[in-house]
This record gives sequence, structure tokens and C-alpha cells, in this order.
Amino acid sequence: MRIAMIQDKIVPANELEDVYFDRGIFFGDGVYEVMRSYNGRIFALEEHLQRFAGSMSGIKITGVDIDLIRSRILKAFDAAGIVNAKIYFHITRGSQPRDRVWNAALKPNFFLTVSEVADNTESKTKGIAVSTHPDWRWKRCDIKSLNLLANVLAANDAESKGCSEAILVDEDSLITEGAGSAFFAVRGQTLQTTPLTANILPSITREYAIKAGRNIGLEIIEKSLTVDEAVGSDELLIASTTQDTVGVVRFDDKIIGDGKPGKYTKLITREFLSFTV
Amino acid sequence: MRIAMIQDKIVPANELEDVYFDRGIFFGDGVYEVMRSYNGRIFALEEHLQRFAGSMSGIKITGVDIDLIRSRILKAFDAAGIVNAKIYFHITRGSQPRDRVWNAALKPNFFLTVSEVADNTESKTKGIAVSTHPDWRWKRCDIKSLNLLANVLAANDAESKGCSEAILVDEDSLITEGAGSAFFAVRGQTLQTTPLTANILPSITREYAIKAGRNIGLEIIEKSLTVDEAVGSDELLIASTTQDTVGVVRFDDKIIGDGKPGKYTKLITREFLSFTV
Repeated sequence: MRIAMIQDKIVPANELEDVYFDRGIFFGDGVYEVMRSYNGRIFALEEHLQRFAGSMSGIKITGVDIDLIRSRILKAFDAAGIVNAKIYFHITRGSQPRDRVWNAALKPNFFLTVSEVADNTESKTKGIAVSTHPDWRWKRCDIKSLNLLANVLAANDAESKGCSEAILVDEDSLITEGAGSAFFAVRGQTLQTTPLTANILPSITREYAIKAGRNIGLEIIEKSLTVDEAVGSDELLIASTTQDTVGVVRFDDKIIGDGKPGKYTKLITREFLSFTV
Repeated sequence: MRIAMIQDKIVPANELEDVYFDRGIFFGDGVYEVMRSYNGRIFALEEHLQRFAGSMSGIKITGVDIDLIRSRILKAFDAAGIVNAKIYFHITRGSQPRDRVWNAALKPNFFLTVSEVADNTESKTKGIAVSTHPDWRWKRCDIKSLNLLANVLAANDAESKGCSEAILVDEDSLITEGAGSAFFAVRGQTLQTTPLTANILPSITREYAIKAGRNIGLEIIEKSLTVDEAVGSDELLIASTTQDTVGVVRFDDKIIGDGKPGKYTKLITREFLSFTV
């Protein structure tokens, strides 16, 4: 490779740092995780590490020691000194001149940030509005990869409509999940959500929300919802690592229930938070 | 944001360069193009610029002047002094702490490289082997985005099988296109390829290959092929910017024709190259 250009500036390509040739930017050739801590304790650390290992395996990034990843996370979390922390990290396959075929000798690139979890008391108290968007994502959403443009476009469409989350709807008019969350409906004495056999992320928060629902006496139904079924539900809620569970009070232009987070949503949230202590 | 970590090293996040917070790496939130020159002249520059503008519009990157992009390309091409050059460039939405919702004030990041086009005389002379792979890509392949993990995984699967390209097959068992190329079959006096109404890239090389086929007297049929139809074709070929047109002589474990690039393939290539002078 002879030359590179960054904005208007020409530079010899061999003088550029490896970060400019990260396969993460050329292809999204990497996987990531987001964890959080509650009062100084990382929630579901091992489950996230296990899923991360699965994601790496899914895209054939090999030779990364999960014990090393765990020790880096703990070291960074400790150094940050934030009790309610959001921990983001990704691994990409490494840096090389752009080529779809990867060099087998590449050393993966690891990047992590620790920041404060945004307070979501208002969302939890008042509930949130969501809007639907076509699910444009790839067919391997079981892998938590850096290919997130479909999620970004959906999330920004929601934002432009004054909504806090986009709910993705597939070609069969079934809801898959949120652009950054799992999606649930309370219908009678049941808690319904998309089955993992659909093209969704095996969300860890989803598992804990299901556990919370079961603990408060709801029957769990893993079956995809149509938009009409969602709108006609008693209560709707989303679940994500950084927000845990939040009630949905408006779905596109339809008010859900009485426009406030429902009683089961509140019970699920309370039960969920009991797991994090 | 308090701290970041690169490999094993903790660094204050605010001391890191913007490139570490590029939305391109977090989300693949950008679009790209690849062009080439033949003997000192960039081929189909305006068509690529027009498609690039379409891709930017498709993901709502606004305010980028195409005249500025053109001038950057020409400046870098001139500086590189490579007569048969491969020019890669991408624009991402910009750098910010990771958030799916973008900051409207972001300044896009532009990155470009110029390198020698790899010689493909041997591929053109002997033809290439290809292997099939499920098409896992997202549903907006009309946008030339940085979300290319599905292409990368398919290309590396092909490589591991001793093949030069992966041919993507959708859920209806129809061929869409190659992981990095358009795909064509010669059947009798016809040249058949996937219609743009399928979920494929509006490939510029595809348009020129169609024009070449028409010029040599073939009827153009834009209709998706099944794998069986492909294998039963008289000739197969792929078309891409850096390789123009190359005959396919093996498709999975099936030999195509007499195992050498076919007569129409050679005529198409000759006609195609006449456009580049």
C-alpha cells in the first residue's frame, strides 16, 4: 500500500497507526459486550463472558483467553472507581491492510470503556414511548457483532419520532426485539416474548426478566408477537443491560393500558433488581 | 466517560484520539467505495461517486460535498503515482462516545488508501473456483455500508475450501451475488444475473458486464438463478471492480463447461476492457 488520506491530508500508509487498519472499521469484524455494575458489583459477569466467548467462536476469532478478558474488565472497573458503571468492550480480529480474507496470524484488538450508567429513574417512573421499524439486521443476530448499522438507523428513526426505543418488526410482521433491548408483553397472567429460535440476541437481561416474571407468578410464553397483539396487551416492557426493565406506555401512536407503567411491570422490575444486589 | 483500555493498558478516555471513538468501529456506521484505474485513468469515477452519494443518503450522512470527495480522490491518486491503482475510501458518521443515537453535530471521518491492483492474469486465464455460502447479510444491500461481517465470513469460508469467491444463496435457495462480486451465467445465447430488485448491491461493474454481454450479442435476463441452474449453465463468471470479469470453472464440487473460461466469458472480458481504455 502506498498512501493513505485522512480527511484532506495525505500520509504514507506505513506511518499510520494500526488503529486505522482495524478490521473493525473496514468490516465490523469483531464482537462486543456491555455490562453494568450495581453499587460496586458487576451484574452477571460470567454470563456475559460466556456469551462473549460464543460470539468470538461464531465469527472464528480464536486464541483469546476469557480469563484474560475477565482480568482486564476487573482491572479497568477497579481503576474507574464508579459504583454504577457501564462497561463496554469489543474485540476485533486485528489490523491489516483491507482484505476480506483475514490473515491467520493477526493479533486481536481489545478496546474497553468504563463510564457512569445514565440514570433512568424518569423512564422507569413515567414509562417510555417506542416506535416500530423494519428489522433490517443480518441473519446471525445470535452473534453480538459490531455490524450494528441497522440498529443505529432504527434507533435514530425512533429518536426522530420522540421515542426512546425502536421495536424491530420482521418480514412476517412479527416483532423480534428492540434495537437495543428485549421486548415483553404482559397479557392476562402471562409474560410473552420472542423465542430464542427467532433471529434475536440471546439477551442475558431477557433471561433475568423471564426469571423475574416467573417469580411473581406469571406464565412465560416464548412466542413472537404481532404488532396488533403488542398494542392490545395489558402491559409492555423492554429489558436491557443498562436500563434493566422499563415500562412501555406508548407504542407508535397507541397508548398502552392507562398510559403508565403497569402493576406487573413494576413487580418485574422490583424482582429483577433483587437479583442485582 | 472516565477511562478506556487498549489491550492491557488503561488510559484516560479524554486522552485518546478520536479514531478510537469512530462510529465506524462501534457500529459500522459508514459507507465506502472501491474504484480502480487502468493505465492511469480512473474507471467509472462519476458512477462510483453517484453511488457513494446514494449510500450516504441511505444512512442519512448529510452535508458531505461530492465535489470535495472527488477532489480528494484525484489528489490522492495523483500523489500515489500508480497507473493500475485500487482506490478505497470510506466515510463514517464521525467520532463520539458510543451511543446508538448519533449527535447531529458530528463531523464525518474520511479515510482513503491507494494501492496497486493485484494482478489477476492467472485467474482470468485459468478461471476460478467458487463455493456457496448462506447469504446472512442485512436487508439493505443496496447501501454499500461498512457492515460486512457476513461477506467476510463467507469469503473466508470459501478461502478455507480453496475457492476464490463465495457465492451467496438466500433463504429461498436463490443466488444473490458473490461476497465481493456480481454473478453471471451464460445459458445458450443469454446472459443471466440477479435483478436489482433482489437484495443486492447496484454494482457498477455488473452494469458494464451487462453492457458487454449485450454488445457481443447475448440476450440479458435479469432473474435470480438457483444453484442447480447455475451448475447446469454453459459458463459462469463473476464481475468486480478490482477483477473486472473472471470465469468460474468450478462451483462447489461441480466442474463448469470443460473446466476452462468459456468463449462468451472471454468475449465479455475483451468487450469490458474496451470500456476502460
